[in-house]
Amino acid sequence: MGVVIPLEDERGEAGRAHGQDAVKRLQALVADEMESVNEFIRDRMASEVPMVPELAGHLINSGGKRLRPMLTIAASRMCGYTGSDHISFAASVEFLHTATLLHDDVVDESDMRRGTKTARTVWGNQASVLVGDFLLGRAFKLMVETKSLRALEIIADAASIIAEGEVMQLAAAKDTGTTEDAYMRVISAKTAALFAAATEIGAVISGRGGSEAAALESYGRNLGIAFQLVDDALDYGGRAAALGKNVGDDFREGKITLPVVLAFRRGTAQERAFWERTLQHGERGEGDLEHAVELMQKHAALEDTILRARHYGAIAIDALAIFPDSPYRQALSDLVEFCINRNH
Amino acid sequence: MGVVIPLEDERGEAGRAHGQDAVKRLQALVADEMESVNEFIRDRMASEVPMVPELAGHLINSGGKRLRPMLTIAASRMCGYTGSDHISFAASVEFLHTATLLHDDVVDESDMRRGTKTARTVWGNQASVLVGDFLLGRAFKLMVETKSLRALEIIADAASIIAEGEVMQLAAAKDTGTTEDAYMRVISAKTAALFAAATEIGAVISGRGGSEAAALESYGRNLGIAFQLVDDALDYGGRAAALGKNVGDDFREGKITLPVVLAFRRGTAQERAFWERTLQHGERGEGDLEHAVELMQKHAALEDTILRARHYGAIAIDALAIFPDSPYRQALSDLVEFCINRNH
Repeated sequence: MGVVIPLEDERGEAGRAHGQDAVKRLQALVADEMESVNEFIRDRMASEVPMVPELAGHLINSGGKRLRPMLTIAASRMCGYTGSDHISFAASVEFLHTATLLHDDVVDESDMRRGTKTARTVWGNQASVLVGDFLLGRAFKLMVETKSLRALEIIADAASIIAEGEVMQLAAAKDTGTTEDAYMRVISAKTAALFAAATEIGAVISGRGGSEAAALESYGRNLGIAFQLVDDALDYGGRAAALGKNVGDDFREGKITLPVVLAFRRGTAQERAFWERTLQHGERGEGDLEHAVELMQKHAALEDTILRARHYGAIAIDALAIFPDSPYRQALSDLVEFCINRNH
Repeated sequence: MGVVIPLEDERGEAGRAHGQDAVKRLQALVADEMESVNEFIRDRMASEVPMVPELAGHLINSGGKRLRPMLTIAASRMCGYTGSDHISFAASVEFLHTATLLHDDVVDESDMRRGTKTARTVWGNQASVLVGDFLLGRAFKLMVETKSLRALEIIADAASIIAEGEVMQLAAAKDTGTTEDAYMRVISAKTAALFAAATEIGAVISGRGGSEAAALESYGRNLGIAFQLVDDALDYGGRAAALGKNVGDDFREGKITLPVVLAFRRGTAQERAFWERTLQHGERGEGDLEHAVELMQKHAALEDTILRARHYGAIAIDALAIFPDSPYRQALSDLVEFCINRNH
């Protein structure tokens, strides 16, 4: 795959560099606490059953950015939190995220994630389902220990909503007639709900349950939506090497994402027949992925997916405006740029 | 399959009839509250995604005895509980149980459960995994609403332990050399942990966190072990019609259960080779199940599995002795007989 779609905003490479700096600044701000989170994670995924930490560790240590726990830490600190429960909640959010990834890979029959074999490829579907369940239970246990009932409620809600979103996607899967609104409902549930929970609990554990919790919920939700939309665009246009997973995974899995929704709606009857054959009926052959990318370029489907992401990103940034200026607020605000301009 | 192994104790049919009466007496005692539990379950498995309640309802409404939620109700009432949170906890226990069954059927590739097609056969593995996750999240949500942190901790722990037990079983699967001790660790986790949690929370929400909680934990754990051992024996010797699932499911899935552990250890070299071929290497053919049952009869493996179950059942009954006599205590005590003498 040599197709590379430029995803930069008007600031081009400068915008991307700014985004990269943003994530580095955020990482630097929370570095010490993330070290505690990582240690806590290692500690609490222990089990007398060796396969449990082996399998869980394969994914947890695979070099993900730990974006969601970083959000919990930064949001808590922006709210002036001085306790230590944010470490437990950050670890808990990462466990919940890992559990959904383990189950997603089984559901999607994925072989690769972040450039390495998926757990299900190494240990099988059965163990992946069960260790995911273990991590879900462990995530709740860590949270119960903090005794913060409101934060527990937020995460328990998110866990159900994520699963509902995945079921929604399953039911809509392969339906090229999916509307943009229906698709937004899916990603709002399956991706954005956990981002929203990760940030909202930062306010809740700091005793800021009102407008500040609502603001952080909104920030997380809109950031999550933007993040997912960019992910969808990258799956058709990113640089394969940097992406870590192969370009075209969504296409090969017959997933309907926003770039497909846009290209389908803007397409000719003949083009729609192409999408129906390849995604609805799953008849894919040589050259089909390249043709799919061509159609997306023709209809500006990837650029417009990024444009939609910018819209949600802007809402996320405005949501933060009620907080006084601080390095944390700045880093969270800049992080939106990173999520939109990233190339992996 | 015409093989029927008599599982009655020395009281024979009388013992079985006594057991059947026990469960009916328990059902009568908690009938009103179980009606509330059922209504609560119907209410709280609702989702705007139609497939979620459809799939969950298929299993939840399939005519299970609701043994675990009944335990929570009866244990709470035996402890003098007068509030309404026991309804939420009972529903939560049933959701957690249903989630594990949905995932178990995927892990075991089971086609039938309680005489009907499994959810995964009707809606697929993917939806079964995801709706299981939804129910896990919902189970925690219901419990968080009660604000009982200790009860939450008990259930969160149980959720992880159940998954650990399943992974243990997966790792030991097909190993005919599994010891009885190792097998007991598996079922103590995968089955008995939820029974123990279901009964212990009855004491906890009643404000009886000390020796009464410990007694009910012990009752539930030992009852759960006895229940599972009888299940294992029934899988080789029950009456297919009454069993609801086919005799020989464990054999066909290559599962190592206590009857196999006993028959293998007591067997000749030639017999061990039979168990290794059929379970370890999965080479099963015509007549193998019948031969397996013959070997179990030869070595009294089913009778002795029931004898082991009686041992744990006796511990369960003694655990209840610290409670003053009451219809609830009597029903819980008699329930042990039902679990051991049941034929389905």
